[in-house]
Amino acid sequence: MNAPAPRQRPDPETVARVVTALEARFGARVATGLSQREQHASTLTWVPNQPPDAVVFAESTEEVQAIVRICAEHRMPVIAFGTGSSLEGHVNAPYGGISIDLSGMNRVRAVHAEDLDCVVEAGTTRKTLNAHLRDQGLFFPIDPGADASLGGMAATRASGTNAVRYGTMRDCVLALTAVMPDGAIVRTGSRARKSSAGYDLTRLLVGSEGTLGIITELTLRLSGIPEAISAGICPFPSIGAACDATIVTIQSGLPIARIELLDEVQVRACNAYAKLSLPETPLLLVEFHGSDASVREQAESFGEIAAEQGGGPFTWATQAEERSRLWQARHDAYWAAMSLRPGAKAISTDVCVPISRLAECVEASKADIAESGLVAPIVGHVGDGNFHCLLLVDPEAPDEVARGNALIDRLVRRALAMDGTCSGEHGIGQKKIRFMAEEHGPGALALMRALKQTLDPHAIMNPGKVLEA
Amino acid sequence: MNAPAPRQRPDPETVARVVTALEARFGARVATGLSQREQHASTLTWVPNQPPDAVVFAESTEEVQAIVRICAEHRMPVIAFGTGSSLEGHVNAPYGGISIDLSGMNRVRAVHAEDLDCVVEAGTTRKTLNAHLRDQGLFFPIDPGADASLGGMAATRASGTNAVRYGTMRDCVLALTAVMPDGAIVRTGSRARKSSAGYDLTRLLVGSEGTLGIITELTLRLSGIPEAISAGICPFPSIGAACDATIVTIQSGLPIARIELLDEVQVRACNAYAKLSLPETPLLLVEFHGSDASVREQAESFGEIAAEQGGGPFTWATQAEERSRLWQARHDAYWAAMSLRPGAKAISTDVCVPISRLAECVEASKADIAESGLVAPIVGHVGDGNFHCLLLVDPEAPDEVARGNALIDRLVRRALAMDGTCSGEHGIGQKKIRFMAEEHGPGALALMRALKQTLDPHAIMNPGKVLEA
Repeated sequence: MNAPAPRQRPDPETVARVVTALEARFGARVATGLSQREQHASTLTWVPNQPPDAVVFAESTEEVQAIVRICAEHRMPVIAFGTGSSLEGHVNAPYGGISIDLSGMNRVRAVHAEDLDCVVEAGTTRKTLNAHLRDQGLFFPIDPGADASLGGMAATRASGTNAVRYGTMRDCVLALTAVMPDGAIVRTGSRARKSSAGYDLTRLLVGSEGTLGIITELTLRLSGIPEAISAGICPFPSIGAACDATIVTIQSGLPIARIELLDEVQVRACNAYAKLSLPETPLLLVEFHGSDASVREQAESFGEIAAEQGGGPFTWATQAEERSRLWQARHDAYWAAMSLRPGAKAISTDVCVPISRLAECVEASKADIAESGLVAPIVGHVGDGNFHCLLLVDPEAPDEVARGNALIDRLVRRALAMDGTCSGEHGIGQKKIRFMAEEHGPGALALMRALKQTLDPHAIMNPGKVLEA
Repeated sequence: MNAPAPRQRPDPETVARVVTALEARFGARVATGLSQREQHASTLTWVPNQPPDAVVFAESTEEVQAIVRICAEHRMPVIAFGTGSSLEGHVNAPYGGISIDLSGMNRVRAVHAEDLDCVVEAGTTRKTLNAHLRDQGLFFPIDPGADASLGGMAATRASGTNAVRYGTMRDCVLALTAVMPDGAIVRTGSRARKSSAGYDLTRLLVGSEGTLGIITELTLRLSGIPEAISAGICPFPSIGAACDATIVTIQSGLPIARIELLDEVQVRACNAYAKLSLPETPLLLVEFHGSDASVREQAESFGEIAAEQGGGPFTWATQAEERSRLWQARHDAYWAAMSLRPGAKAISTDVCVPISRLAECVEASKADIAESGLVAPIVGHVGDGNFHCLLLVDPEAPDEVARGNALIDRLVRRALAMDGTCSGEHGIGQKKIRFMAEEHGPGALALMRALKQTLDPHAIMNPGKVLEA
C-alpha cells in the first residue's frame, strides 16, 4: 500500500522511442507539433498549460489498447482527451506523456429504445448523442453545460442542471469498456438495469478521471422525451428564501427536473449582458417534465411553495420559445459573468453540501467574496446542494491568483465543515488534490491509494491527478 | 494479482485462542453453543448449514474493530450477520470463523428531514427505520420483502418492489462506515447528494457482501411519504402482453412506484391459499405515488396502456384497505407458493435482463420449469427486468436438488445470453460463484480478484463467497 514513487518526466530518448513506435502504427495520426500538444492540455484553468509529448488520434478500443501497451512498456504517462472541457486541469500533462484523443471515437453503436439504453464510443459528445436520439423520442438527460464527450463525463462523474431529477453519470452508466494500465480490455456491467453480481467495477471507473483506466465505450441509461415541459422563473428576497423554497419543493416530492439559483451578482450581469430587466435579487429558474396536466400541477405547486417563502411573482410557460426567453439568463450566465470583467479569466469552482446548509454556505461565501475584493457570481444546482463560484481573475496578477486560490480554500473548507464535498461535479484534477486528505480522512485516502497502486503500479495513467500532484 | 491461497479451517488451538481473547473482552456476548452457531449460518438455502466457530454480539463500530483485529491477528475468518435473511448462503461459514452479529447495533443516529437523509447503525432493520421515520412524513423506500438489516441490504446491494422508482441500495447509500480487514475504520462519502471527489469507495463496499470490509454505519437517502398512493391489479392474456405493457409504461415516463408480475402458477397458488378468485392468467400489480391528481392520472394512463396490450379489466383504488385487498396476492406470494407443495423447501433465485428480453426470458424459463417437472412460480419486479423463480424442492431428494440446480444454471445462462446478470438483487454468496467468470469475463474477474487481494490479503473477510468457493 505504498504511494507511487516520485515522478519524473520521461527522458528525451524514451519519448523518441515511444513516438517512433506510435508513428510506425498510427502514421499521421500522431501529432508532435507544439500547438496540437498545447491544445490537448488544459486551458480552462489558471494552472499553466503543460503539454503532452505527443497526441495520438485513436479510432477504436483496440487502438487505445495498442497505444497503452506501447506506453506501458516505456513507463510513459497516458492522458485521455475528449473535448478538453474539464475544469480542474484534468488533461494537463505535468509529467509529459501521450495524450490519446478519443474524439474520433464518436459512433453511436446501438440504441435499444425498448430498454431505454444505448451504447456509444467514449468520444461521442452528449449533443451528438441527443441529435441521434431525437427521432426516437429519447434523450440522454445529463447536461453539464459544455458539449463534453460522454467518456469524459463518465471519467469526471459529471452531472449538471437536471441531475436533481435524472441523476449523475454515477447513476446513468450501466456498463463500460475500459483499457487498463497493462493494456487489458475490461468490460464491466451489463445491460441489466440492476445487478448484485460482484464488485461494482463500473462505479470504480466512473469518476476515476483516467487514473485507473481509459474508458472507451459506454452503455448509458436514457429517458423518454417528456410529453410536456414547463419552465419558470421566480425572484426571492434572499438566498435563504430561495433555498427554503428549494428544500420544501424537494421534500414535497415534486419531481422537479431543474432548479437553478442565480445570485443577484449573476442577475445583474445577465441584465447588462442581454438587456434584460430582471429584478436584481436571487432568482430560481425551474423546469418541470411530465404530462400536460402534470407539468401544470407541478408549476402551480411550486408557485405556492415559492409564495409561502416570500418569493414571486412566479412566471412560467410551456411553449418552447417562451421557455427559452424565461431561461435566457441561465443560458447566458457564463458569458454574462465574463462580461463583468473583460480580459479576466473565469475560473469555475464548485462545492456541494447538504441542502439544509446551502443558504448558510452560499451566504458566507458571498460575504467572503466581497471581503476578498474579487468578482465572483454564484450559480447553483440547488436541488442537489451544489453551487459554482465563477471567479473572474486576471491570471497575470499573482496577487489576484493567490486571493482566488485562498478563496477556493475557504469555500471548500466551509463545505467540508458542513459534511459536504470539495466537488459536486467538476472533479479533482490537479487543482483539488490539496483537499483530498481533508475530505476523506487518512483511512479512505489510503484505500484510494491502495486501489491506484494495485491497478496502475507504474502510475502511468494520468499522473499528477486526483491523488498525487 | 494472485488469487487467495487455498483455504483451510483454522485449527482447534487457533479457535480456542481467538475465543478466549474474545471472551476476555466481550464476556457473555460470545456464544459458542451449536444452536446459536447454526442459527447464524444460512438456513434459507439448500446448501448445508456451515456454522461459524463462535458468534459475538457487537454493539459499536469500535467493538467490530476489536473483533476484526483479534481475528486478523490469528487469520480467522470473519462473517458479518444482520438478520440472516440473505438467500445465497451469504452468512454460512464454510471455513469456520467468527460471526459478528450486528443486530444490537440498531440505533437511528440522526434524521435530517430537510436533507432527506438519515444515519443508522448497520443492524437497524428497514422496518425499524420506517417506524422511526413515519412521524416526520419520511420513509426509506427500498423494500426487499424481508425485514432485513440495512447493513445487510447494503452489503448485498438489495432492491425489491419499488426499485423501479426509487433505485436500489447502490443509489440510496450516501456514505458509510466500515471496518476493513486490517481493523482500520474507514468512512466513505459524505452527506452531499453528489460528489466528484475521488474514487467511489461507497459503491465499492456496497454489494461486496462482507468480503472487503464490514459495514457498521450508513447514511441513507430518504423520500417523503407521498401525498397519495393508488394501487391496482390487471390481468393479461400472456406474459408477453404483460411485459409489453410494462415496457410502454416505463418508456412513456410514467413514474410508476411498483410494477410486479405474477405468473399464472403463482396466481393459482394465491387463489388457493387466500381463497381469492383472481383470473388465473399473468397479472400485473401496480402502485403509483404522487399527488391526488397525479396518482389518478397515472392510474388512468396505465389502464389505457394495459388495454392497448389486451390486458384488463384494470381495477385500482386509493384507499389503504382497498389497496391492500388488491395487492393481497403479492403480499401472500411466498406463503402461497410454499403451500403448493407442503414440506418442500422454497429456493428463491433471481436474474435480471434488459426489459425488451424479459418476456422471452420468462417464457423460456417457464417452458424449462415445465420440462424439468419442478414446481416453480415466477414473480417479477418487471419494471427493472428482474424476476424470481421460487423453486419448491425436497432438500432430501438429491435428484430434485440436482434438477433444481441445473434449472438455475440454465436460467442464469439464458439471462447472460441476453446481456443480463446472474443476480438482480440477491447477490452471489456461495451459490452463484460458479457464474461469475461467465458473467464478467476474465478481465473484469481478474480486476475483482486484485481488489480483494489488495484489501484483504489474508482473505479473512467472509471467505468462500463472491469470488472463491
